Amino acid sequence: MSVYLHDIPLAQAQARLREALLSANLWRVLGIEVIPLDENALGRVVAEPIWAKVSSPHYHASAMDGFAVKAEETNGAQPSVPIQLLVSDNSQAQYVDTGDPLPDWANAVIPIENVESLDENGQITSAIRKPSVIRIRAAVAPWSHVRPLGEDIVATQLVLPAGHILKPVDLGAIAASGHQEIKVARKPKVAILPTGTELVPIGSKLKAGDILEYNSLVLAAQVKAMGGKPTRYPITKDDFDLICERVQEASQDHDLILLNAGSSAGAEDFSSKVVEKLGTLLVHGVAVRPGHPVILGVIDRQSQDLTSGTSHVIPIIGVPGYPVSAALTIDIFVEPLIAKWLGRKPLELPTETAILTRKLVSPAGDDDFVRVVVGKVGEKLLAAPLSRGAGVITSLVQADGLALIPSGIQGIEAGEKIQVRLYRSKSEIEKTILAIGSHDLTLDLMAQFLSQHDRRLASANVGSQGGLVAIRRGEAHLAGSHLLNPETGEYNISYIRQYMPNIPVKVIALVGRKQGLIVNKGNSKGIKNLGDLSKPNIRFMNRQRGAGTRVLLDYYLNLMTIPQSSIVGYSQEEYTHLGVAAAIASGRADCGLGIAAAAQALDLDFVPLFQERYDLVIPKQFADDELLAPLFSLLADSDFRKAVSQLTGYDVSVMGTIILED
Amino acid sequence: MSVYLHDIPLAQAQARLREALLSANLWRVLGIEVIPLDENALGRVVAEPIWAKVSSPHYHASAMDGFAVKAEETNGAQPSVPIQLLVSDNSQAQYVDTGDPLPDWANAVIPIENVESLDENGQITSAIRKPSVIRIRAAVAPWSHVRPLGEDIVATQLVLPAGHILKPVDLGAIAASGHQEIKVARKPKVAILPTGTELVPIGSKLKAGDILEYNSLVLAAQVKAMGGKPTRYPITKDDFDLICERVQEASQDHDLILLNAGSSAGAEDFSSKVVEKLGTLLVHGVAVRPGHPVILGVIDRQSQDLTSGTSHVIPIIGVPGYPVSAALTIDIFVEPLIAKWLGRKPLELPTETAILTRKLVSPAGDDDFVRVVVGKVGEKLLAAPLSRGAGVITSLVQADGLALIPSGIQGIEAGEKIQVRLYRSKSEIEKTILAIGSHDLTLDLMAQFLSQHDRRLASANVGSQGGLVAIRRGEAHLAGSHLLNPETGEYNISYIRQYMPNIPVKVIALVGRKQGLIVNKGNSKGIKNLGDLSKPNIRFMNRQRGAGTRVLLDYYLNLMTIPQSSIVGYSQEEYTHLGVAAAIASGRADCGLGIAAAAQALDLDFVPLFQERYDLVIPKQFADDELLAPLFSLLADSDFRKAVSQLTGYDVSVMGTIILED
Repeated sequence: MSVYLHDIPLAQAQARLREALLSANLWRVLGIEVIPLDENALGRVVAEPIWAKVSSPHYHASAMDGFAVKAEETNGAQPSVPIQLLVSDNSQAQYVDTGDPLPDWANAVIPIENVESLDENGQITSAIRKPSVIRIRAAVAPWSHVRPLGEDIVATQLVLPAGHILKPVDLGAIAASGHQEIKVARKPKVAILPTGTELVPIGSKLKAGDILEYNSLVLAAQVKAMGGKPTRYPITKDDFDLICERVQEASQDHDLILLNAGSSAGAEDFSSKVVEKLGTLLVHGVAVRPGHPVILGVIDRQSQDLTSGTSHVIPIIGVPGYPVSAALTIDIFVEPLIAKWLGRKPLELPTETAILTRKLVSPAGDDDFVRVVVGKVGEKLLAAPLSRGAGVITSLVQADGLALIPSGIQGIEAGEKIQVRLYRSKSEIEKTILAIGSHDLTLDLMAQFLSQHDRRLASANVGSQGGLVAIRRGEAHLAGSHLLNPETGEYNISYIRQYMPNIPVKVIALVGRKQGLIVNKGNSKGIKNLGDLSKPNIRFMNRQRGAGTRVLLDYYLNLMTIPQSSIVGYSQEEYTHLGVAAAIASGRADCGLGIAAAAQALDLDFVPLFQERYDLVIPKQFADDELLAPLFSLLADSDFRKAVSQLTGYDVSVMGTIILED
Repeated sequence: MSVYLHDIPLAQAQARLREALLSANLWRVLGIEVIPLDENALGRVVAEPIWAKVSSPHYHASAMDGFAVKAEETNGAQPSVPIQLLVSDNSQAQYVDTGDPLPDWANAVIPIENVESLDENGQITSAIRKPSVIRIRAAVAPWSHVRPLGEDIVATQLVLPAGHILKPVDLGAIAASGHQEIKVARKPKVAILPTGTELVPIGSKLKAGDILEYNSLVLAAQVKAMGGKPTRYPITKDDFDLICERVQEASQDHDLILLNAGSSAGAEDFSSKVVEKLGTLLVHGVAVRPGHPVILGVIDRQSQDLTSGTSHVIPIIGVPGYPVSAALTIDIFVEPLIAKWLGRKPLELPTETAILTRKLVSPAGDDDFVRVVVGKVGEKLLAAPLSRGAGVITSLVQADGLALIPSGIQGIEAGEKIQVRLYRSKSEIEKTILAIGSHDLTLDLMAQFLSQHDRRLASANVGSQGGLVAIRRGEAHLAGSHLLNPETGEYNISYIRQYMPNIPVKVIALVGRKQGLIVNKGNSKGIKNLGDLSKPNIRFMNRQRGAGTRVLLDYYLNLMTIPQSSIVGYSQEEYTHLGVAAAIASGRADCGLGIAAAAQALDLDFVPLFQERYDLVIPKQFADDELLAPLFSLLADSDFRKAVSQLTGYDVSVMGTIILED
């Protein structure tokens, strides 16, 4: 059986690791630790069932401030037929505070507000707690206003089962049941070894080819959040012997080794060879996307003194290098392992069925995990796929969940149902405003401001026309749009009527903004206007079809009778203004049409050409919805307006103007 | 305006505190702390929006191991029309590893598996990464297999908004965007002052009247879980001056003081007077149950050197003494405050509509929070109320959620809908087995074993007949029952037919167990049989109507012609075997009918009288359900059988026998 980068199904890979650990007697709670009962116990996992050592209360306690009595002696008392009871110890009535033990002879308490306190002459006294006699006008049942022994906890009862994750109130119940310490599962110790000659530590000054090593940080944080104890090792170069040495060192005092990167089959990928040399390679390649070049193995522990109970082997996982692959590998392979070692249940994300907003293609045979933004638009729960690049960690940051395309399915059409494992609660998702349409930098600012008002703005950038289509399909709460009508010079309205003729909308101006040519610093090619685009030495970067900026470009090219075919790079597309700017900053292109703010952001030059209006298009159905109320407030918020006006090329004078209201 | 223990509505109380803090400029993020970007940042709250300082990748990176090329030069390549490209730097093709920068002249990468590597003679070479020439048989599009600059992050973009709670992947995105440190909200410092002369520290040897002080532990853990930094002070006696001193001391270096207990209006309740002396009493009494005697106030900060920016006042909350009241007070008043101080959203529990299984009565005018167990039985989501005693902390431990009876509603009938704020996820609730019926100690053991098999057993003890009624109403997955038919000597079946005639069931024997008289240690009254119960000096403790044990008692009393009225205490009811044992242990009664295990648990003596069978009654509808499968496995599990047989008076030989299957 070859295990050399041959993808096997996920369940089979997990089973191989489990079996290897079972046979090494490592598929169990690793150990027990006795810790003091304090707030640091929060989140630890109970290792043995906790049985009550004492009862709580451990005596019959008065539940009120009042008088302890014998219930039988109150029988017959009525409003018009009061009964008097003599107050003294060992007698008919005795004052007790809440929590005081009931005297042996008593079996009920009358709350102080239900008695009349009398002095030795039978007169009402102000010493209500120290009368000679009390007068009552109602009988009480036995055991009224008494907390009987064991009301809360009876000695010997089960307080908490093993495997329970400790919450604040649990600590109180453990204390109440007579314990001062808790036996919890010891934390699995996980060594994280980043390897790669190209890696540089966080904070390094970067040159081309350097890769910031932050996977070990994410992995350590994941391990910590799962209840393990991570150790981050320094970066090891791509050197087989060095890596072997480091792995052997880590094996001495850890329960698991994560070897990050080098897990593929390239020239410098040593991980599988390291595992083969030091132990047994169980799996190389799993049919999951992203993250298929996973390595699972067990190696011999290099320890001088193996105390009894210490296993002679230790599992090692070769974690793929791309950050999204790495993080998902930890979720898929490490989480269940840590759960087993702690004796708790594996984490299970709640699953909901959502409607996919965009077609997804997936390799047959792979379990394909797609990061999605989830929002509720009307009654529909929608899942909008994020970037699928394994290097795009922001797609994990922005994700509301993971949609699974199971192996055997090659793709899912837009509008079909898909299962989504949710990272966020449904109530959070119900507070998500889904903005699909044209991108603008003010949307980032809006997201920041809305987050202070209990709303989340999730935006997907598909261009102005794409946004109108999304609204027609009921897949967005609003669309940012700046579509010029070449015949009327008017923005958006004619397109709205064309794309969504039967949907009443509210259209509100957000900003006026400058469009122009983004060029390199110094404008070395001396680009001055659209006419320069057809020069053969000018490489243009375009926006995608449907984007308002592209409509604008085509309008002016047409006016100026500049053929699209004359422009080098006309067919090169970026999806955002910043994408265009980045292309120019990197030298991939010489210019592109975009907004001033994008040029400024990347320290580029800008040739202003036109001022245009950017509107928010909102279906009437949502315009009055509470969900969007904070967004409307924002348009009048002086802090927000100020923040926007500080972006270069923005004009906030139009902000909030109602352009159309059906 | 008097604020002396006069309950005001919750919203009004919260508003008074908020206004006082607003006017003291304390209704805001308290401060910013710069922390290193490591795994300890997990869970901290971002204090200022994080904008990207660098792009990621910061250069055009190869996304594969392969050859960098100019896409234009691959045009025309086809399977039958290969194209050859010369390999060397600054030429037609150059080898790149994944992550390597793309050479300036290139604009695409061809993966190594898609090329033929040739030597200088045009022959296939095994030096696949160092050929002289590559042969390709397909064209590539520009920018194929390239991760363009900014694919993940574009410098200046918003990475995370302020108020975001840091997750593991966020740390990676922050690192990738060029940061080494993070500005987070500083943790609010919360002083917790337990007061009460009757309080003793956790671990003390208890005598009657002592109350274990564990509220400060629960409060500290709650504050910690909310993101604050708790300080637990030692216990202060009920002494006005001492408490004032301690509060002043705590005010120097904290942001909030929690004064636990003494918040009511009793003789020894000093909290409100302390607040009045040291500052302003805003609220004394809030219309919520449990927890109404809450105190809200602000006091003058006692500090020698008030650095600029330090407020001159500090809020103080008088927290009620009962543990359930105390914990809920923290959730209601402290959580939103800490959220504000951290700049995050207040915690919001998901809310579901459930069907109430038992009538609830509530004082009109109060927001009444009832702890409930929640389970899904068939398609119904059910909420079964737990003990409502404010002293019963186990009710919070066992609770799956809080049902709210809003002010203005005096009660809710069984079968009506109620809103429940859930502590557990729906998937956990869907794994809950609801057992309603007779109590038996083996259910505790069963709960412990089931928790190891991804199931939670939530049991409500309502007696055998109550269990059958619950099953008839579709409110339980199973009922424990030991109902003797006095005419046939048979268990359960005739009752099942009577109570639930149209419901097909499966009945499985769980255990045989000894019933007898639980008596005090030494059996000082020499009780030998049921005949002794009618002696005037023998006080009996009965089980509640409908309990199998009570049916058994009545059967034998009838056989022996002992009138119920001759038994002192016949009308005194406890709801569990352990409750009866506790009553005898405490001297409240001399004997009661129950099981041997309960007597043993509290170190009492036991007079065995009968052996009876305890069965599980399961509707056919659930008997084949996957939910209950682990429970059936358990009946054959040798570890479980062993654990049960170690309980005194239990016989496991019948365990798993099918008594009836419709």
